[in-house]
Amino acid sequence: GRKVLIVYAHQEPKSLNGSLKRVAVEELSKQGCSVTVSDLYAMQFEPRATRNDIVGCLHNSEEFNYGVETWEAYKRGGLSNDLIEEQKKVQEADLLIFQFPLYWFSMPAIMKGWMDRVLVQGFAHEFPNCYDSGLLKNKLALFSFTTGGSEEMYAKGGISGDIRYLLWPMQHGIMHFCGVKVLAPHICFAPEYVSEEKRKEMLVAWAQRLKTLWKEEPINCSPEWYFK
Amino acid sequence: GRKVLIVYAHQEPKSLNGSLKRVAVEELSKQGCSVTVSDLYAMQFEPRATRNDIVGCLHNSEEFNYGVETWEAYKRGGLSNDLIEEQKKVQEADLLIFQFPLYWFSMPAIMKGWMDRVLVQGFAHEFPNCYDSGLLKNKLALFSFTTGGSEEMYAKGGISGDIRYLLWPMQHGIMHFCGVKVLAPHICFAPEYVSEEKRKEMLVAWAQRLKTLWKEEPINCSPEWYFK
Repeated sequence: GRKVLIVYAHQEPKSLNGSLKRVAVEELSKQGCSVTVSDLYAMQFEPRATRNDIVGCLHNSEEFNYGVETWEAYKRGGLSNDLIEEQKKVQEADLLIFQFPLYWFSMPAIMKGWMDRVLVQGFAHEFPNCYDSGLLKNKLALFSFTTGGSEEMYAKGGISGDIRYLLWPMQHGIMHFCGVKVLAPHICFAPEYVSEEKRKEMLVAWAQRLKTLWKEEPINCSPEWYFK
Repeated sequence: GRKVLIVYAHQEPKSLNGSLKRVAVEELSKQGCSVTVSDLYAMQFEPRATRNDIVGCLHNSEEFNYGVETWEAYKRGGLSNDLIEEQKKVQEADLLIFQFPLYWFSMPAIMKGWMDRVLVQGFAHEFPNCYDSGLLKNKLALFSFTTGGSEEMYAKGGISGDIRYLLWPMQHGIMHFCGVKVLAPHICFAPEYVSEEKRKEMLVAWAQRLKTLWKEEPINCSPEWYFK
């Protein structure tokens, strides 16, 4: 069975994000996948990148450099336990699903903190092993999110610009950099402004997509996909 | 004298980011500006958007909606004190400078949390008052940051793509959405891989730019600036 990690960032289990997460757990489990959820708010996951992420002495205590210190700590097994736990989950996963409400054209800070702290050098990338040779190659990622704005606002020529513009930092800058292949995003536009029935259709559509997810081809993660 | 708020996110005062912040405080103060710094790591600023941001009862305690709850709390003066403090600083400022190291094609989570939590509906925007009619119009913003990657990697056609691609969510999605006009970004490429002398030149160049900053015209914050 394949292994899936869902990194989930919503405060409210009753939200559409909560339901989308539940639908994914159910559908993927039904398929025989083993599914793990990192429920970031419930875990009170720490988003701040600080000295606390390194157990024991620093490599250079004169001038703190987070990137260098976490790299060194990773190599000697000296990262804090919450990071080691998350890295284990990532290591075992074939697919990472990120489920969140779009906050300011990006992920909520608590999820950005997961990226900042978990995907350290040595574990997820190590120059020149980045992009196609990133250390997490052979894994897939999928960004599944809800928006405040409507599909029209996020159309090419719309006031908020093509939704693909804002996917660049997340899909290319993070996942592709680590060698992860990216499946097409799953976007529920403006669920707060549609009927209860339409929201139910959104859940059904997600379950439906998941049924054939493993047959999907990754997107071509190049500037053309985003900006053409 | 003009008022400037520097929102600063680096753990180490001796870092180049720390020096860039200090240079800005010195140069702008010399000009007669009144400068305030929000030193996010020193403040242990909370990046997570949670129920704790609302003092007293919730508008809807059955199903927690962060956007709705903070909007309602703002209107009745019921946001948590740390947010009220930051909003006061923003309200008074003519110019916001964001000083940070680029983490994963974006700002560090602690600064993303500042955006998520401080720029609430009612304060920074209130539909249809967004983009050119956002509630923070007549203010300026400037993103000043350091990168890990080199200028060549962030060139058009470079492996990390044009650096402007990743500015879209921050400059357009956040600042422009709130009505803030955006000055050209100030980017120090790969300071960790250059000589001490080159790093000193970076500080001098920043001080130099600040001398004539108030004569600069904002960029034209449209898709053309970012993606052409």
